[in-house]
Amino acid sequence: MQTDSLLERRYRVLGHNSPLFYDKPLHLVRGEGVWLYDAEGRRYLDAYNNVPHVGHCHPRVVAALSRQAATLNIHTRYLDENVVAYAERLTSLFDPQLSMAMFCCTGSEANELALRIARDCSGGLGIISTAWAYHGNTAAVMQVSSLFTPEDRRGPYVRTVPVMDPYRDRAGRSDEELATAYADDVKRAIDSFSAAGVRFAGLLYCTAFSSEGLPTVPVGFMAKALAHVHAAGGYFIADEVQAGFGRMGSHIWGHQKLGVVPDIVTMGKPMGNGHPLAGVVARRDLVEAFTKSNMYFNTFGGNPVSAAVGMAVLDVIEEEGLRENAVTVGDYTLAKLKQLGERHTLIGDVRGAGMFFAVELVSDHQAKTPATAQTKRLINLMRERGVLISRIGMHDNILKIRPPMPFSQQHADLLVDTLDQVMETL
Amino acid sequence: MQTDSLLERRYRVLGHNSPLFYDKPLHLVRGEGVWLYDAEGRRYLDAYNNVPHVGHCHPRVVAALSRQAATLNIHTRYLDENVVAYAERLTSLFDPQLSMAMFCCTGSEANELALRIARDCSGGLGIISTAWAYHGNTAAVMQVSSLFTPEDRRGPYVRTVPVMDPYRDRAGRSDEELATAYADDVKRAIDSFSAAGVRFAGLLYCTAFSSEGLPTVPVGFMAKALAHVHAAGGYFIADEVQAGFGRMGSHIWGHQKLGVVPDIVTMGKPMGNGHPLAGVVARRDLVEAFTKSNMYFNTFGGNPVSAAVGMAVLDVIEEEGLRENAVTVGDYTLAKLKQLGERHTLIGDVRGAGMFFAVELVSDHQAKTPATAQTKRLINLMRERGVLISRIGMHDNILKIRPPMPFSQQHADLLVDTLDQVMETL
Repeated sequence: MQTDSLLERRYRVLGHNSPLFYDKPLHLVRGEGVWLYDAEGRRYLDAYNNVPHVGHCHPRVVAALSRQAATLNIHTRYLDENVVAYAERLTSLFDPQLSMAMFCCTGSEANELALRIARDCSGGLGIISTAWAYHGNTAAVMQVSSLFTPEDRRGPYVRTVPVMDPYRDRAGRSDEELATAYADDVKRAIDSFSAAGVRFAGLLYCTAFSSEGLPTVPVGFMAKALAHVHAAGGYFIADEVQAGFGRMGSHIWGHQKLGVVPDIVTMGKPMGNGHPLAGVVARRDLVEAFTKSNMYFNTFGGNPVSAAVGMAVLDVIEEEGLRENAVTVGDYTLAKLKQLGERHTLIGDVRGAGMFFAVELVSDHQAKTPATAQTKRLINLMRERGVLISRIGMHDNILKIRPPMPFSQQHADLLVDTLDQVMETL
Repeated sequence: MQTDSLLERRYRVLGHNSPLFYDKPLHLVRGEGVWLYDAEGRRYLDAYNNVPHVGHCHPRVVAALSRQAATLNIHTRYLDENVVAYAERLTSLFDPQLSMAMFCCTGSEANELALRIARDCSGGLGIISTAWAYHGNTAAVMQVSSLFTPEDRRGPYVRTVPVMDPYRDRAGRSDEELATAYADDVKRAIDSFSAAGVRFAGLLYCTAFSSEGLPTVPVGFMAKALAHVHAAGGYFIADEVQAGFGRMGSHIWGHQKLGVVPDIVTMGKPMGNGHPLAGVVARRDLVEAFTKSNMYFNTFGGNPVSAAVGMAVLDVIEEEGLRENAVTVGDYTLAKLKQLGERHTLIGDVRGAGMFFAVELVSDHQAKTPATAQTKRLINLMRERGVLISRIGMHDNILKIRPPMPFSQQHADLLVDTLDQVMETL
């Protein structure tokens, strides 16, 4: 009743098209660790949200936020210790080549800025992304976000490469062969720019290929693709909005797991544990060249409060061993999901790394037919049973499981047991 | 010594081109009300910053931020009371036609979104802004920010109108005549699009014309200009990032002072008192039409913490009577600045409204020759004497005085007395 009325009020002032999860939207009032609580006091296991990276309302992060907000909050046109110390700490987590930081407030702004840098420094306009990518909501970033932008609205400066789908594409090929085939797709996109007389600027990839369905990328693919990119004078922009900050377990950054050093890295969502903090870390020569010919200033970007929050997030990741936890609990969860796959024929493939899992549902194991309708039902049934997950992929048939990082084996058990029960009822 | 070292560290990690105020940058460590404190414990009267709208580190805003950050921080794909209540409160401050809100994190994002809405709903691409405008840092917004984007980098879809400068343009004309002449400039820009076969989308103006030098716009100008805009099928985007939330004293919004109702309004800086909160308020038909054909989602936009902060800012503005204070203290300050103008021939013109003042420095009252070098020296000397201001305008010869809203008569006295002393030494 209360929820209905809030929904009506929301429709009136935010409109009917502002995205909402679930057939029956969830009215939340409190969060703590991996738990969310609704207006009726019901508890939900959060196995979806990566923004509250170190856990909902982490007391250490809230304390840093509150303390700094009560002390000083100002822009970067004055000197401030917080932003400098944070930039030093952040860049120390990257290859020494990636030594400079620029701050903004959202992943969209970070990708906007990265596109501006790549285009300005290359002298080109052509950007390659994947055929099911999402990188943010600004006009320029939307053009390279094929997930929401059909080809006729992408303009002349965007090419997409097919989504990598080893689950379907493997066809007996070795990793080496598959990596070469995927890298050839990148080469073809570069050639297509040449043929159209468009100078190439760069390649923009989410390093987890999250919207694309979290494919298990063949070893060596990224290095082969980058060889083409660099040979053509372009830059590699690694979008770490989803993969970064230890999410993938084995490495802090997705590009490290892919075995390459990008030219430009963009970060967002988990960076401030929900506080609007995002940034670009890039090669010194690119940042200096870009800022020399382009005034870039972001009023809220890198303010002392955001910097203090970002620092607290890094502290918690390290001190609570959250990347290591993503390896151990991640491996445990993945193994349990694979066991589940042996009991339910609806599960076609289980994959993932660290604390990020994809469970692909198919109605036919041979034909690998996407079980889209069942996936949607399952997500809603999971919500009814108190576990929050979502779905991704070109056919919306892949469960997206990406919990806050302090996810434990007990939480994994609850997740997988609930999945098991719900799949019995499908 | 400490400051030098911090500066070196900053250069290393943020680069040499990240904007910094003053010949000798100011290392700040604390803020409170209208005061800022540097690393040596020295106090500065802040007569420049509008982001800390209700005062630096206002305890009521900090409390709302801390409380909500400890309770729940999540995106708008779940139902949440905070964002709905805030959107209702915010839209209640506008003409009933402007009944819907969309939230984002920065003024740049707000203007990006407004441009997308205007272009999508009009079916056109052509945008008009002024010849010395700044609206933000994304690629699309930079194109309409002539202050930093020379004509050859603005692309085919931007036209600029000359900066209104009644101090120089008046030439004996009445307000009515001047208003018509300025509106004709808008008409000419629209015609220029027609001539080039570019469909017109809209007009984007800062309603204080802040970067342009805070001109005293002739009464009736905006209504005349809008008649041309609407007749040509375009929309008026009112950028309230600088003028909004009572800054101009007589009205909550700059467009109200100009006597018109925009189609789309953008907000930023003061909205969250430094917390990254920004938004668009617009006509229902435009928001519904745009979001029907374009998925728009902003991960951090309208999160419960930002909404709680935004609400606290509105509470403080009302309960402390800050708009009313902008009228009384604003009028007092303006009168004192005008008196100062009678004593110093360097002052060519004094203008402003509410808590926003412009003092134009000229080396010759007849020729109105911009005193650019003296203006720069003066800004730095004011900083040495503990008062923070800046400069604007096409010739960088206009003092920009725009303090936090709880500025008092005593603060105004200190500001004007210090200006007086510094001008004696120039």
